[in-house]
Amino acid sequence: MSDVRVTIATGTTWQEVAADRQRHRDATIGALQPPLPELALKELPLNVTGLCQDTLSEQELAITGANVEDLAPKLASGEWSAASVTSAFLRRAGLAQKLVNCVTELLPKAALKRAAELDEYLAAHGKPVGPLHGIPISVKEHLAMKGLDLNAGFVSWVGRVAEDDALILKILWEAGAVFYVRSTQPQTLMHLETSSNLYGVTVNPSNTTLTAGGSSGGEGALVGLRGSILGIGTDIGGSIRSPAANNGVFGFKPTAGRLPVNGWSATMAGSEGILGTIGPLSTSLAGLELFTKSVVAGKPWLTSPDLVAMDWKENYSPFEGRKLKIAVMWEDGVVMPHPPITRALEGVVEKLKTSSVVDVVEWKPWRHDLAWEIIAGLYFCDGGADETAAINASGEPWRPLSKFILDENPHMKHYDIASLWAACAQRNEYREKYAALWNATGDGGDMVDVILCPVGPGVAPKLDTSRYWGYTSQWNLLDYPAVVFPANDRVSVEKDGGSLEYQPRGEKDVYNWNLWKEHGAEGYKDAPISLQLVARRYEDEKLLKALEIVLKQSGLPATVSQ
Amino acid sequence: MSDVRVTIATGTTWQEVAADRQRHRDATIGALQPPLPELALKELPLNVTGLCQDTLSEQELAITGANVEDLAPKLASGEWSAASVTSAFLRRAGLAQKLVNCVTELLPKAALKRAAELDEYLAAHGKPVGPLHGIPISVKEHLAMKGLDLNAGFVSWVGRVAEDDALILKILWEAGAVFYVRSTQPQTLMHLETSSNLYGVTVNPSNTTLTAGGSSGGEGALVGLRGSILGIGTDIGGSIRSPAANNGVFGFKPTAGRLPVNGWSATMAGSEGILGTIGPLSTSLAGLELFTKSVVAGKPWLTSPDLVAMDWKENYSPFEGRKLKIAVMWEDGVVMPHPPITRALEGVVEKLKTSSVVDVVEWKPWRHDLAWEIIAGLYFCDGGADETAAINASGEPWRPLSKFILDENPHMKHYDIASLWAACAQRNEYREKYAALWNATGDGGDMVDVILCPVGPGVAPKLDTSRYWGYTSQWNLLDYPAVVFPANDRVSVEKDGGSLEYQPRGEKDVYNWNLWKEHGAEGYKDAPISLQLVARRYEDEKLLKALEIVLKQSGLPATVSQ
Repeated sequence: MSDVRVTIATGTTWQEVAADRQRHRDATIGALQPPLPELALKELPLNVTGLCQDTLSEQELAITGANVEDLAPKLASGEWSAASVTSAFLRRAGLAQKLVNCVTELLPKAALKRAAELDEYLAAHGKPVGPLHGIPISVKEHLAMKGLDLNAGFVSWVGRVAEDDALILKILWEAGAVFYVRSTQPQTLMHLETSSNLYGVTVNPSNTTLTAGGSSGGEGALVGLRGSILGIGTDIGGSIRSPAANNGVFGFKPTAGRLPVNGWSATMAGSEGILGTIGPLSTSLAGLELFTKSVVAGKPWLTSPDLVAMDWKENYSPFEGRKLKIAVMWEDGVVMPHPPITRALEGVVEKLKTSSVVDVVEWKPWRHDLAWEIIAGLYFCDGGADETAAINASGEPWRPLSKFILDENPHMKHYDIASLWAACAQRNEYREKYAALWNATGDGGDMVDVILCPVGPGVAPKLDTSRYWGYTSQWNLLDYPAVVFPANDRVSVEKDGGSLEYQPRGEKDVYNWNLWKEHGAEGYKDAPISLQLVARRYEDEKLLKALEIVLKQSGLPATVSQ
Repeated sequence: MSDVRVTIATGTTWQEVAADRQRHRDATIGALQPPLPELALKELPLNVTGLCQDTLSEQELAITGANVEDLAPKLASGEWSAASVTSAFLRRAGLAQKLVNCVTELLPKAALKRAAELDEYLAAHGKPVGPLHGIPISVKEHLAMKGLDLNAGFVSWVGRVAEDDALILKILWEAGAVFYVRSTQPQTLMHLETSSNLYGVTVNPSNTTLTAGGSSGGEGALVGLRGSILGIGTDIGGSIRSPAANNGVFGFKPTAGRLPVNGWSATMAGSEGILGTIGPLSTSLAGLELFTKSVVAGKPWLTSPDLVAMDWKENYSPFEGRKLKIAVMWEDGVVMPHPPITRALEGVVEKLKTSSVVDVVEWKPWRHDLAWEIIAGLYFCDGGADETAAINASGEPWRPLSKFILDENPHMKHYDIASLWAACAQRNEYREKYAALWNATGDGGDMVDVILCPVGPGVAPKLDTSRYWGYTSQWNLLDYPAVVFPANDRVSVEKDGGSLEYQPRGEKDVYNWNLWKEHGAEGYKDAPISLQLVARRYEDEKLLKALEIVLKQSGLPATVSQ
């Protein structure tokens, strides 16, 4: 990472670089045909999720209202052309940008060309090119796309141009996908929000005073507004799950080593104390699964030998002849979730307890505070030197959450080899301890299958307040697959407005509780409520099957409706 | 690793510590009933492999002459009692110690107690406790056995007593194994020989002027003499394969992350730039497979979450309906193997080429010199500080090959975080490059399945000359599974005594070639000749199936005969 370029054109200021990126973004949206209407920004309500309905055509609404599992057969049969589908999503994504600032660029030319080729292929061969034929997939700007900028959220990195597509994009392309939009990411990529000096702040479509989450917050907002029904995020501490949860959509962080991360842009290349992951956000559970199994079917381990050569288990029925055993973790022993989260979790658990195919037990969290200490140190083994240099190289200001995770991170240090080894050994010990807890829940078929828990200590936070990662980073430290799903409910003054007595247990708990006390249900109004399901390492297939059962047994839909 | 204890009893010299360990070893052998005869050491021939026949009873010879696949059904049916089998192997292992110095202690009391319990179980239940019921397994001293010394080959570590059994031993125990002997390891564990100040030098049963290999050289010699038919070794650069090859037995280094290494003793805990592995040495290919699948069946990943949750593929037929495609790597482009190796490889390839179920192509090695630079640096990221401290703490002298790999290793450095990341990134790049080479050999079913190559640059080397690791460490760097098999041939003056013109290409090649020029066929007389088969990462099952075919098609036995 020695060749940090200060700006596109040496000598310009960071503001000029950012303005240039934004001009480029706006130009790609301006190129849409027919053009999108100008929105009168001052008149927008806090909840903008209904506004697409007013702007898009009936056909565009029908297309963008479909989920992956509906779209795929219509595209494969030719009932809907890839061109019309791509066009509808391009327009809805452009609109999403105007509403919540989630796009870094549209790719109308490349996407429509690809769509036309797919339509020609189908016409000529009478069959789709693959399982994702014509499915539009949105892509976090983090991922390399040949010829496009690859800046990792740093102004100083603007001008680095990808020489090749990320491996996952190549595989999805082979399966028939159409890439049509790139989405926002925060400075450093290490926020649970999406705020950068390049593109500003991505806000939450359900309540624009709240964050869309991060670091895949552009994806979260885009899928939340159905500017995409399937997007690619990345997650090393919650970066897929926070935006999925904040926007009330499905999001899946698989076990590391199952999906290829080659070709993402990040500092600290070669660091491996904590492994980042890549995965889908979608308006449906089926979308997550189709995405994941299509990538695995591409045998990415043959190209990227850091991956595990493990086929996706098809027709897998881990719960045949026995109950699904779910352990509920109400809170993590460090920070108590806000009332809407606990209310939603109670609602789901109550229904699960009446199910005949599910066993519900309690999960006792073990030292999640220690888990955070370990992971917060291992994130930045060079004491944040690489990140700091990448921010400072352009003179751009530090965003508040960059300061939080780098400057104000008490667990960060610049390791030497001996202390790094000790930290890795401590991490391994923690993992073994947690495995032992899991083993102690039963014997073979009687063991806990999944943990049901919050995704965060509240719904989508107010901007710049997402300072508690523990509910998601816990599962990164353990490298457990985790999936986020909407509880099909939102914060409301009626349900969540009551007064509550709670005595916080420590600094972090106080901070989080004050956020609720200060803003109350009114402050988080309309924010989607989501929950998280977690399985043991490599049990990705089991996790998605379990979620199917959880949804069914608790009466929740497996899709997000328009 | 802060609590380095200088000796068992503080204040004693390293010589006293070593003498005490040896007294203990001799006492465990002396406890055998009936006692072993004293050997007249000065009369021993260079090749001592025939001497067990003269010393053991007919029944003991029958038992220790059986391979795992013969022994298992006889033990399961009760035809042979676990007690008689254990007793026979105890005695043969004791004899092996007297011949080649490969044992650190026998465990007659614990082993015979265990055997008696197994016999009782079988009598009471009419069925074996598991697939390894009564199978005696020898264990490299490297592995923790509760209550026994765990010194990693350092005098200063003597007195560290294992608090628990290594996980792999627990699983093998559940499967019915009997542990009856611990075997020698070298100082630092980082030699391809077995020489320590605690127990001296383990020599080769086929020619005692040669090394048994290392670092699992105790196992190699023990299995070579059938003092064991199934033993556990460990391998981070060749430490299973070198002793297997030098002793003409089967040895298997699986992909890292498939078998559990928890509970081995080593410096540099928490280091993960290069992952060590654990695996079997055996007198038969079936022994390797039974061992490996029995361990995997114990689902070690539930306890040791660094492992991959991957079941052993049973009834796996990767070559049905197509040919096995073998790429032959004659030499690695750095060091030319000695004539007997090339002769044996030619013999096998010639036969394979006539087979109708095999395709033979050539493998072009790519920068194996660079591979060595990368791995030799990553072995000791602290510049060897931990190893050096462990040697020096007792005042014991440095063994020659400790000096070679630590003091004279030009690629070793004390990394900081930035240079460690760069080294890991370079390693990843090398791995991707090699994967691309493999991918370029064909498309899907047409791709090369396995590489057939030498195990080392010669047969078992003269003592203290095993300085070239490249033929084995290459596959550790790539984390490819690799299996060693005997070519059923030995060095002989008739076959290998001719004069040869060869112009070595560089310092390492000169060193290796001079070893042959200096000693010739006569110097390596009777040394077994072995070869190596290598597959891609995680293709462990495929590799063993491929070896089955290679042996059959080239007319080689899948067992070592007595």
